[in-house]
Amino acid sequence: MTTERLHLYDTTLRDGAQTQGVQFTTPEKIRIAQVLDALGVDVIEGGWPGANPTDSDFFATAPATRATMAAFGMTKRSGRSAQNDDVLAAVLNAGTPAVTLVGKSHEFHVRTALGVPLDENLDNIRASFAHVVASGREAIFDAEHFFDGYRADPAYALACLHAAFSEGARWIVLCDTNGGTLPGEVARTVEAVIASGIPGPHLGIHTHDDTGHAVANSLAAIEAGARQIQGTLNGLGERCGNANLVTLIPTLLLKEPFASRFHTGVTEDALRGLLKASRTLDDILNRVPARQAPYVGGSAFAHKAGLHASAIAKDPTTYEHVDPARVGNERIIPMSNQAGQSNLRSRLHDAGIEVAPADPRLSLILTSVKDRESRGYAYDTAQASFELLARRELGLLPRYFDVDRYRVISERRRNAKGHIVTVSEAVVTVQIGARRITSFHENVHTPEEADQGPVHALSRALAADLGELQGYIDDMRLTDFAVRITDGGTEAVTRVVIDSEDGQGRQWTTVGVSANIIDASFDALIDAITWKLVRDRAPVPA
Amino acid sequence: MTTERLHLYDTTLRDGAQTQGVQFTTPEKIRIAQVLDALGVDVIEGGWPGANPTDSDFFATAPATRATMAAFGMTKRSGRSAQNDDVLAAVLNAGTPAVTLVGKSHEFHVRTALGVPLDENLDNIRASFAHVVASGREAIFDAEHFFDGYRADPAYALACLHAAFSEGARWIVLCDTNGGTLPGEVARTVEAVIASGIPGPHLGIHTHDDTGHAVANSLAAIEAGARQIQGTLNGLGERCGNANLVTLIPTLLLKEPFASRFHTGVTEDALRGLLKASRTLDDILNRVPARQAPYVGGSAFAHKAGLHASAIAKDPTTYEHVDPARVGNERIIPMSNQAGQSNLRSRLHDAGIEVAPADPRLSLILTSVKDRESRGYAYDTAQASFELLARRELGLLPRYFDVDRYRVISERRRNAKGHIVTVSEAVVTVQIGARRITSFHENVHTPEEADQGPVHALSRALAADLGELQGYIDDMRLTDFAVRITDGGTEAVTRVVIDSEDGQGRQWTTVGVSANIIDASFDALIDAITWKLVRDRAPVPA
Repeated sequence: MTTERLHLYDTTLRDGAQTQGVQFTTPEKIRIAQVLDALGVDVIEGGWPGANPTDSDFFATAPATRATMAAFGMTKRSGRSAQNDDVLAAVLNAGTPAVTLVGKSHEFHVRTALGVPLDENLDNIRASFAHVVASGREAIFDAEHFFDGYRADPAYALACLHAAFSEGARWIVLCDTNGGTLPGEVARTVEAVIASGIPGPHLGIHTHDDTGHAVANSLAAIEAGARQIQGTLNGLGERCGNANLVTLIPTLLLKEPFASRFHTGVTEDALRGLLKASRTLDDILNRVPARQAPYVGGSAFAHKAGLHASAIAKDPTTYEHVDPARVGNERIIPMSNQAGQSNLRSRLHDAGIEVAPADPRLSLILTSVKDRESRGYAYDTAQASFELLARRELGLLPRYFDVDRYRVISERRRNAKGHIVTVSEAVVTVQIGARRITSFHENVHTPEEADQGPVHALSRALAADLGELQGYIDDMRLTDFAVRITDGGTEAVTRVVIDSEDGQGRQWTTVGVSANIIDASFDALIDAITWKLVRDRAPVPA
Repeated sequence: MTTERLHLYDTTLRDGAQTQGVQFTTPEKIRIAQVLDALGVDVIEGGWPGANPTDSDFFATAPATRATMAAFGMTKRSGRSAQNDDVLAAVLNAGTPAVTLVGKSHEFHVRTALGVPLDENLDNIRASFAHVVASGREAIFDAEHFFDGYRADPAYALACLHAAFSEGARWIVLCDTNGGTLPGEVARTVEAVIASGIPGPHLGIHTHDDTGHAVANSLAAIEAGARQIQGTLNGLGERCGNANLVTLIPTLLLKEPFASRFHTGVTEDALRGLLKASRTLDDILNRVPARQAPYVGGSAFAHKAGLHASAIAKDPTTYEHVDPARVGNERIIPMSNQAGQSNLRSRLHDAGIEVAPADPRLSLILTSVKDRESRGYAYDTAQASFELLARRELGLLPRYFDVDRYRVISERRRNAKGHIVTVSEAVVTVQIGARRITSFHENVHTPEEADQGPVHALSRALAADLGELQGYIDDMRLTDFAVRITDGGTEAVTRVVIDSEDGQGRQWTTVGVSANIIDASFDALIDAITWKLVRDRAPVPA
């Protein structure tokens, strides 16, 4: 291969853990390390052993990875030797093949934050790296605030880099710690560092997104000669986050000038797992995936404009810069009140419903969608509820059952032992053909266990007995439940979105809207069951 | 002023309306136009009159703005004159001072999407702009797919631009419609366009974020000579979104080389309203504000790492590239299990609680926070619940009241007229000093009105009678209610976050967690009331 090698250094488990609201457990860190390893990053920075119990635990139980594991720490403090610095010792004691130490390279920080003379900081860097290199580790220097430092005092900033490099540091990483540097300055500064005698194949770039340039700055540094990129999955990280590897990786592999000039440890096959890797992290964090994220966002290949959608039908390259399948994503023609009839027919076709172009019922469906969207429904993702709405307008929706009534009760009280307990129960009456069936469910739990709440009780009561339809819904499972307060026209309403799956692995999404969260949940549950009955072609009870 | 003028062109109401899941009503479009005008953008593109009823309505009722209003449309179709093109006529009939027409500039699209000869497309562009200019409007040409077109056939792509420019178009806007172009190519292409004879002060840039470079590409075009930037509030837009003006504006005003070279219509004072402008759009869309957004994100100036937080206390410029106040944001030292005791004391200080550095209760509070966060609580934003937790550990939390029990019922049934109705009611028993008080609330509504649900009934029952404490809570109001499914350690739990405010305009946030959404809501409500009693120094009932 004649292309140059770029090295990917992941810091999701260290700088990513600085994200506000993020706290990884040790099992979560292990799972993320496995995801990163499967993706093909070169280095996994696991945390700061000694600074945080979770990080120490992680290194004690870290999984075997193809990627090099790195422990993070800081250069030794003044007034003690590297050998006698307990913070540095804790980092080395993690036993990782690579050790990354952050150190100051900005004279302002040496004076203000550390309060030590400038020369002493250089001594600390030299002694720390001599010690790490002597221990046989791959040594990496994170030059904190390098770009700000270079702007303020270029000679001192460069001296800090050379202090580490001359002692054998494998990588000198230029950090835009405050995230305020723009691409032009990044490029010029990297060129100056190379001119000072540190070759590009020893230079790394570490950026933050405080001006929205973390990715652009990383690529500017690569174009200027740096060969290691530090970043995180989904751009986690302190403040606005670090460079997003999920954005950078496909750009490096699929876009020019990078695709022709470089290669990384990420294969084409692993790239197809990118969306899944990104979603796995969202799952671990219980985060809603960012819809508009480059490459992997749910909207990244969604063509809402009517003109775009019709051109896409002729040739997808008209409005797509890369093939979504290469990153594991897919094309979406969403339903919306901007959609033309061609969008609508394409979406009905996906649901197995063929309607002729001039069919007047198409405009009935569009009107119904618009009307319900103005009341708070959202059909972009709730494809199953959209299908049911369309089938209703087309006269293709069988009437399987009617719900006569339901009642749910949640109660908190003291039990016989004086402990506070919460209990929920539900009763539902349905009419199925000629039969009227009433079912009851009480959430069963010990006083120590949490009550699963009224929606759970209601869903169980509803699914407890649907008479002759019961066999069709036994393999159904509610997999996710999301709640949004939204605008229902004249007042705030609650939108409930339910994800379901069945024994065949089918997954479908339904939506319900009401000012009452129970009512909204109930409507989404009814849609979920009805969709399953339609798909399985259940006969309508007599 | 010796700096050059940059022009900001907002397309939130047109390209932003292409965002999946976004559907603006006419009143919402009017409110957004007012926000944009107050911010100081130069042009507000209001939509495509004739293509969408909401857009036509908007132009019929558009507010008076200092900014120039633009209507959007497309160049005339083949086989008719510009005067006889009904689509173009609808655009001109909106009567706006500026008219923006999108047209093809990529030979592949002319052939594939339009299916017309290349020369005919040039004729259509020329005739359309001659017509718009003759009508006395400021004419703007959005050259669709320009960068892809220039890559494929530079001569033809340039010919399309000159067709519009030679007929008097004021602005030629280079569109990276598919969002796949990177900054280096944007810069080189803009330079080539200027070399072809279209001066930079007539060139605009329109980018999309499909590789995360919408902002970087816009700035690259400006550095290469373009003088108009098109973008949207919060980066709304088709697929991954358009260039985010909320990120671009502070970069242009506060960061070099832009701050010294250029000025815009945005004043320093309007810049301080930037966060509010961004949040207003989120409110209209009922979107959770992006925490990690540059400049305006809730985390943009949050310093979670212990080392950062202690340096910030010495000098904020150590870890901040700009002063958060300049964009209306503020510094945050969040609570988390990574926080050191210095963070904790700083946050307690903000709550008016002073604790000595060596106080052993600090570690009790940290342990309690960690324990509750592992069960699904989140104290980053729920400052009021954090204060109550700290006060409890410090022995500074009065015991105002105890809740003995509550019960809520939601029921759907047919009323006497056979209509399906939903009703909710709640009963709460509290112990206040020596008194035991039971309150009841039933949501009152007509059969046609929506029921407000069980949490509403519960909050009203709780607030109906708190005996001698009632006077302290009468001016309280629940302003927002957010629900998240999250990880409670061994199972999924529901986290409810409640925002409250009182008659003095104070706002506070509380959190509750349970598998049962009613229970979680109840705990957050109790915290909200208790915080208010503490802040108002209510006496503890005897």
